Amino acid sequence: MAADLDPRRAVADLRALRELTGDERGAQRVAWTATWAQARAWLSERLAELPVEVDVDEAGNLWARLAGASQSTVVLGSHVDSVPDGGWLDGALGVLAGLEVLRAFAARGEPPVGLVLVDWADEEGARFGRSLLGSGLATGALDPAAVADDTDRDGVRLADALAEHGVTVERAPAARARLDAAAAYLELHIEQGPVLERLGLPVGVVTGTAGVERHRLRVRGQAVQGGAFPMDARHDALVAAARVVLAVRAAATDERSRATVGDVRAHPGIPTAVPGECELVIDQRHPDAAELARMLDAVRAAADRIAAEEGVEVEWERTWHIEPRPFDARLIEVADAAARAETEGCERLFSGALHDAAAVAALGIPTVMLFVQSTAGISHHRDEDTPTEHLEAAVRTLHRLTADVVARVADGAL
Amino acid sequence: MAADLDPRRAVADLRALRELTGDERGAQRVAWTATWAQARAWLSERLAELPVEVDVDEAGNLWARLAGASQSTVVLGSHVDSVPDGGWLDGALGVLAGLEVLRAFAARGEPPVGLVLVDWADEEGARFGRSLLGSGLATGALDPAAVADDTDRDGVRLADALAEHGVTVERAPAARARLDAAAAYLELHIEQGPVLERLGLPVGVVTGTAGVERHRLRVRGQAVQGGAFPMDARHDALVAAARVVLAVRAAATDERSRATVGDVRAHPGIPTAVPGECELVIDQRHPDAAELARMLDAVRAAADRIAAEEGVEVEWERTWHIEPRPFDARLIEVADAAARAETEGCERLFSGALHDAAAVAALGIPTVMLFVQSTAGISHHRDEDTPTEHLEAAVRTLHRLTADVVARVADGAL
Repeated sequence: MAADLDPRRAVADLRALRELTGDERGAQRVAWTATWAQARAWLSERLAELPVEVDVDEAGNLWARLAGASQSTVVLGSHVDSVPDGGWLDGALGVLAGLEVLRAFAARGEPPVGLVLVDWADEEGARFGRSLLGSGLATGALDPAAVADDTDRDGVRLADALAEHGVTVERAPAARARLDAAAAYLELHIEQGPVLERLGLPVGVVTGTAGVERHRLRVRGQAVQGGAFPMDARHDALVAAARVVLAVRAAATDERSRATVGDVRAHPGIPTAVPGECELVIDQRHPDAAELARMLDAVRAAADRIAAEEGVEVEWERTWHIEPRPFDARLIEVADAAARAETEGCERLFSGALHDAAAVAALGIPTVMLFVQSTAGISHHRDEDTPTEHLEAAVRTLHRLTADVVARVADGAL
Repeated sequence: MAADLDPRRAVADLRALRELTGDERGAQRVAWTATWAQARAWLSERLAELPVEVDVDEAGNLWARLAGASQSTVVLGSHVDSVPDGGWLDGALGVLAGLEVLRAFAARGEPPVGLVLVDWADEEGARFGRSLLGSGLATGALDPAAVADDTDRDGVRLADALAEHGVTVERAPAARARLDAAAAYLELHIEQGPVLERLGLPVGVVTGTAGVERHRLRVRGQAVQGGAFPMDARHDALVAAARVVLAVRAAATDERSRATVGDVRAHPGIPTAVPGECELVIDQRHPDAAELARMLDAVRAAADRIAAEEGVEVEWERTWHIEPRPFDARLIEVADAAARAETEGCERLFSGALHDAAAVAALGIPTVMLFVQSTAGISHHRDEDTPTEHLEAAVRTLHRLTADVVARVADGAL
């Protein structure tokens, strides 16, 4: 079946893109920059060799369409943008593996349904702090009016930066039409975690994305002189915050729980003063909404107890929230079978991180993702890597999955 | 005995100084500023009404000397400088109470020994980050060469700022001669803690200053994606730091222990990343050197255990250290008796905060301090306060203590 597929060519493409758009600190394909535009121009040159229509939608996403016998399409997607000093695979793998699948399909003549590759714009949100920008605008998850006036570190407006790349942000929702004929959405991504490596598996199937509860906590105690104040007379906001940090971890009891405190800030923040105030952001995730609620409740109860015991106040502010987004049960089975056919086994795992697939799945389009093993789970870093044979296995698995899904869509089974 | 003493005048002086050098945010007598110079000019005007010699030494400290029958002197000291937005009493109380004692002695003719008041320059170190600057330079604890090139937030050199106030910093050690004839040093200060208020006592005697161990800890774990990494695969530097914060408190087991973590900084410090690195400063204090060493050992052992359990590295750097400085046993007895004679009782307590008295005591000059109650223990804040009757009691106690010490020095008993 995969006679025309050349997984080594996909890996060579990844290396070429790294050469072109990376430096000694890592990948520099930050969306809405010249280097990102260069990556896309390079991608467009590769696509120009194929019998595909290529254009950019109203939200800045790049589409390549191999026409099929029917109007229905199967969409493969990912993103070439990276964080600053990022890894060579995060995002780019999905796009360039998709390119290779497109090549293999194109070599075999007209497929029964259309096959589409999308390079979503600005998945990382590195410049404006809005993740899933292109897919969010195209799927309606993001309102252009809510993001147009966001600014980067230099004070440049998001709307102006996008305009420099030909995108009129208020017209972005029109991009939604690109997905009207989509019967399925498939995305390959590096795991960015250690699970597949631990299991010794090259590829896994993603069952969905986790729900997220993100809260900012402000702990208010009493700022006093550290030297002069006996321990039992203190209301130390940092001690209370430290106890909350540990309670956040303690509430993450099952293996699918994720709970992170990424930062704590103490005021006045000098060595000789007992901190009177502390701020921390709690990020809790779980693929099961009920379990996520239980984790949040456990931390709320712990924070109440800590507040009472330490004589401090704890103020909660929900800064972000998203429901768990399970992927399509049928596609999970197909992907699992494809992985087992191409590799020595398959693990089903959820994604704690968000991906463009979550935005697509929210529209009700049947969606599934493949993960490929990440060395040491490292990502967003120049050390991000995956063994070559696993990258090749992932390309083969994506190709087999695509072929199986195309056949099912053609048969009306999806 | 105290016929010529008017404690209400001392309180009126404090209020006048507050009016002159404070605003709605608090006292603004930061050393080496125009407001501080104004406070000193005001003090000099008050001193000019008395038969005392007034001048400024090579380190910028202001001295007023009431000549006595013998060359020996009893020195009363404190500082009029404050932190920015500081309290009205911290430092100023000791100077203006000393002024009132000087007035009372001057009214009674030549004392048997000289009575000297010193207003130490820059006790707070608010502008250049060097506490006890004037007393440190005069006593040799600070080397002018080590501080001359310190800069303030605006990049102004310490040496240049002092020169604007007539001080040539390299000549500062010559100020040491001012203490050659000192037979005793006495200092009144607000407690800056809650102990006397808890006991319902206006005044206490300070038995010495605590030893301090200050260390910067760098915790190194692994920065990974919070969403993607299972809890048991993490090496979370902030979780480890939180455990250290609690271990620091847990090691402060007796009522004379003080242990403070004033700040924690996490890197990369974003909500979605498990912190790979954390920095915290631990400040431990105890009046007993062996107990202080035990506290430090306990935290070192806990940090080692936490490092092993969390899979992180903890690097220690000692950033500051001072031995406990016990005050003179005889003077403690005299001060205790004076407090009991003037008020309803006396508590002996150590000082967790440093004072100029510690620099003087380090020279071997018999030293003691009095503390007066601080409302709610608040200091370095516009809310810093002490009930008027306690301020008056403190002035009376300082006067009685001074008279008793002068008598003993005259008798050769000190």
